[in-house]
Amino acid sequence: MMQLRVRLLPLEAEKPIVVLNKEDADEIDVRPLERVRIRYNHHNFIAIVNTTERMVKEGEIGLYEDVMENIKIRSGQTIRVDAANPPESMSYIKKKMEGMMLTKHEIDSIIDDTVGGNLSDIELTSFVTSLYNHGMTMGEIANLSMAMTRTGDVLRLKKKEIYDKHSIGGVPGDKTTILVVPTVAAGGLTIPKTSSRAITSPAGTADRFECIAPVEMGLEEIKSVVEKTNGCIVWGGSVDLAPADDMFIKIEYPLSIDPFLLPSVMSKKKAVGAKYLVIDIPTGEEAKINTKEEFENLADKFIVLGKKLNIKVNAVSTYADQPLGYAIGPALEAREALRTIMTGKGPADLIDKAATLAGVLFSYSGAKDGKKMAMDMIRSKKTYKKLQEIIEAQGGDPGIKPSDIPIGKKKASLLSKTNGKVLWISNKTVDAVARRAGAPKYKGAGILLNKKIGDKVRKGEKLLEIYAENTAKLNQALGIAGKSEIMKIGKKSTMALERYPPIGERDRTFILER
Amino acid sequence: MMQLRVRLLPLEAEKPIVVLNKEDADEIDVRPLERVRIRYNHHNFIAIVNTTERMVKEGEIGLYEDVMENIKIRSGQTIRVDAANPPESMSYIKKKMEGMMLTKHEIDSIIDDTVGGNLSDIELTSFVTSLYNHGMTMGEIANLSMAMTRTGDVLRLKKKEIYDKHSIGGVPGDKTTILVVPTVAAGGLTIPKTSSRAITSPAGTADRFECIAPVEMGLEEIKSVVEKTNGCIVWGGSVDLAPADDMFIKIEYPLSIDPFLLPSVMSKKKAVGAKYLVIDIPTGEEAKINTKEEFENLADKFIVLGKKLNIKVNAVSTYADQPLGYAIGPALEAREALRTIMTGKGPADLIDKAATLAGVLFSYSGAKDGKKMAMDMIRSKKTYKKLQEIIEAQGGDPGIKPSDIPIGKKKASLLSKTNGKVLWISNKTVDAVARRAGAPKYKGAGILLNKKIGDKVRKGEKLLEIYAENTAKLNQALGIAGKSEIMKIGKKSTMALERYPPIGERDRTFILER
Repeated sequence: MMQLRVRLLPLEAEKPIVVLNKEDADEIDVRPLERVRIRYNHHNFIAIVNTTERMVKEGEIGLYEDVMENIKIRSGQTIRVDAANPPESMSYIKKKMEGMMLTKHEIDSIIDDTVGGNLSDIELTSFVTSLYNHGMTMGEIANLSMAMTRTGDVLRLKKKEIYDKHSIGGVPGDKTTILVVPTVAAGGLTIPKTSSRAITSPAGTADRFECIAPVEMGLEEIKSVVEKTNGCIVWGGSVDLAPADDMFIKIEYPLSIDPFLLPSVMSKKKAVGAKYLVIDIPTGEEAKINTKEEFENLADKFIVLGKKLNIKVNAVSTYADQPLGYAIGPALEAREALRTIMTGKGPADLIDKAATLAGVLFSYSGAKDGKKMAMDMIRSKKTYKKLQEIIEAQGGDPGIKPSDIPIGKKKASLLSKTNGKVLWISNKTVDAVARRAGAPKYKGAGILLNKKIGDKVRKGEKLLEIYAENTAKLNQALGIAGKSEIMKIGKKSTMALERYPPIGERDRTFILER
Repeated sequence: MMQLRVRLLPLEAEKPIVVLNKEDADEIDVRPLERVRIRYNHHNFIAIVNTTERMVKEGEIGLYEDVMENIKIRSGQTIRVDAANPPESMSYIKKKMEGMMLTKHEIDSIIDDTVGGNLSDIELTSFVTSLYNHGMTMGEIANLSMAMTRTGDVLRLKKKEIYDKHSIGGVPGDKTTILVVPTVAAGGLTIPKTSSRAITSPAGTADRFECIAPVEMGLEEIKSVVEKTNGCIVWGGSVDLAPADDMFIKIEYPLSIDPFLLPSVMSKKKAVGAKYLVIDIPTGEEAKINTKEEFENLADKFIVLGKKLNIKVNAVSTYADQPLGYAIGPALEAREALRTIMTGKGPADLIDKAATLAGVLFSYSGAKDGKKMAMDMIRSKKTYKKLQEIIEAQGGDPGIKPSDIPIGKKKASLLSKTNGKVLWISNKTVDAVARRAGAPKYKGAGILLNKKIGDKVRKGEKLLEIYAENTAKLNQALGIAGKSEIMKIGKKSTMALERYPPIGERDRTFILER
């Protein structure tokens, strides 16, 4: 045991980390990433050790601001420090490293320590990598999902028949949720939809809907919106559903792996109390899921996992070889979705996809032709009426019109250099150009397509417009658009080998969006 | 591209890490642990990104002191920052995560980026974990060893027939090297021995020999010592042999795994130009290697790997169920080794082990009975004469006597509570008590055994003495010794189930020493 003088470190950490001078660490016999027990007044907690030879002097202990606030200590005061054991969960991570199956208790322990900040990045990485290397049984995935739900917030609604929708992502311009939620809610079903912001794509549903109404609200506000209107479209990040997931994403992203796809999705659905779920699995050459076999395989896993979690799941394989609708980027997409809902008319692919997914949820509740029912809702503006209720309940202006949504002040058009047909559109390049134009940080940035696959094009005709906040961003986006082809114009069946043009700048092949 | 104002961060890092404000990171579209390219004057390098919301303000970039020194920049100056690709090696790490075999080029690339500090801890952990999970072919291990040698310092001696000795560790009090090196060198063979300091044990050979002579010296000094005396015993850490190994150890230690054992050992032997190597593999219930089969398996791997690296390897399985000799702890062991070499007499197990290992090296060079030859060297004091030469060449006092080596000022004895025989000695408890007494940080701390396995003991007779620097450490060591049994005194074949007493405090079951 040692008495050490506290020194404030101007750093942020998400877990209790303390910094010891190497000499003091040797003295109490701990090495970097081992643990110490800290005692001060009635506080008593475990922290992960970093060591230094200069930053913290002998006799001192470096603490982060949030730790100091938690235990109400000031610089210069002393605390007692002693070597401590690694958490029990570390032995279970070790077990997974050996390729063994984990019990419910062991998974609970790992997730508790993940959420509690008791595992270092190295330990968490080893867990994530081992899950990826060795895989998990469906029982393990179910236990993981339940542990991830248990360690976070849970939405408790009065209605018990909760419907939900999820897309595993990967299609630019996919604003389907903005149509599905009010349609389903207008049909009398309860759909408390939490959505994510973009990680690697130009827009997440939360980014899109934020152009129409506020999306950041707490659990109680969400509850009130849903009990008033049957639905909501809110940002999942403002509530703490399955917080372990965010911690795993931080590890998965730099490794471009996603072993947590299933538990991540399902733990969040469980957290909102979902009983019926439709999962959209975009399938195609540039999507996460490339073939019918892969789709069936993944769909089957979702369905089996759903059974274990008492959630009825249907999965739909959707066309993914070009953007959905014509708009890409939060504001442009919000405009397109709003216009479609207001008029009951819009891009055929968007309306068909929304009606299909809403239809699956209607058919759960006994509808004979769910898709037709959904289509009727959209066309008859019942969807719009419900959307206005939701916008108002979330604190937005129900009278909002598409033109009220600001879009990028600078724009440039891409013209066709030749006559022909649109043979393909590169989703990856669309994403890269829209991001380089500033999306999702600048909501008005993005792309408006003028043509889609199969459309005839004349030389000099406009293919698309790029929108950006300023000229610099616009030029950067144009730079990428110039290097890589967004659209291929030609005669049918030419140039098959050029299907995946290199983006030229950074390769963003990994889509983490869940 | 962005221009950012440099701000000094009072932190240390071993790799180029920069800290960006989250807004700026979004602006150039990089996420935590992705890379940026930094340009300033003629400097142009890649750094790993951390992000913060407070510590570094918008428009600023946080740099560590060593980075700032490298590029000669001061706080307040501006540098250009742009998003950059992950290193190529990351795709090879990914390949290993998929369980695929890596080519020589791919392994070279990973090791280059490891040593260059271009891989984040998460990426390195994923590599280490995947090697552990999927294993490596002998070809991969050989390529890894060569890459680890290539990326570090290399000792180039005039003599080309270089002999070496290595122990994979795990036996308390193992001071064999201090006898082997002068014995082998006295026999006319060249043995440039680099040793490690303790990581988890109470003493490494470098810690021990440092009580007799200086062990920290550069490549040129080592060369001069060896060309003068045929041998040396120096700390490997003062030269940069296979530096990748230290980086992997930082990851392996908290995970208690050691997938790099083979390449770690062999890359360092290759770096000193070894042609003939004897490997000591302590085998027993508490050792890393528990059975004859495990020994043969590991020995075989070392031999096959040696062939690929052009090093002739012999492995010896040695008894590991109790400490070697009677002394544990740097100074106590140095005294015991020095006394044994000076008098040509000492603990039978120590002399036998040293003569066996030296004998293997002699037999490489054509000796008919290498062990006898080694024994003769020790008994005839030729070993001592050579040791004095080495001590002098390394800058020590060749007249040093055991009593010149200071040992712990405080001591306590443990007495037997019963009549009987020593049935077993717990190596783990010996290690834990010696470390708690202060070894290796306090060189004088440790344990002096008075009895070993099979010795008769009377009630009240002294079993061992614990040495420490001060009373507090002594009491802590006694605390552990009280909770866990170091020695079991009884009648033969009792209490077999108590063979592994829990240490009670921290569990140090993982021995990383190589």
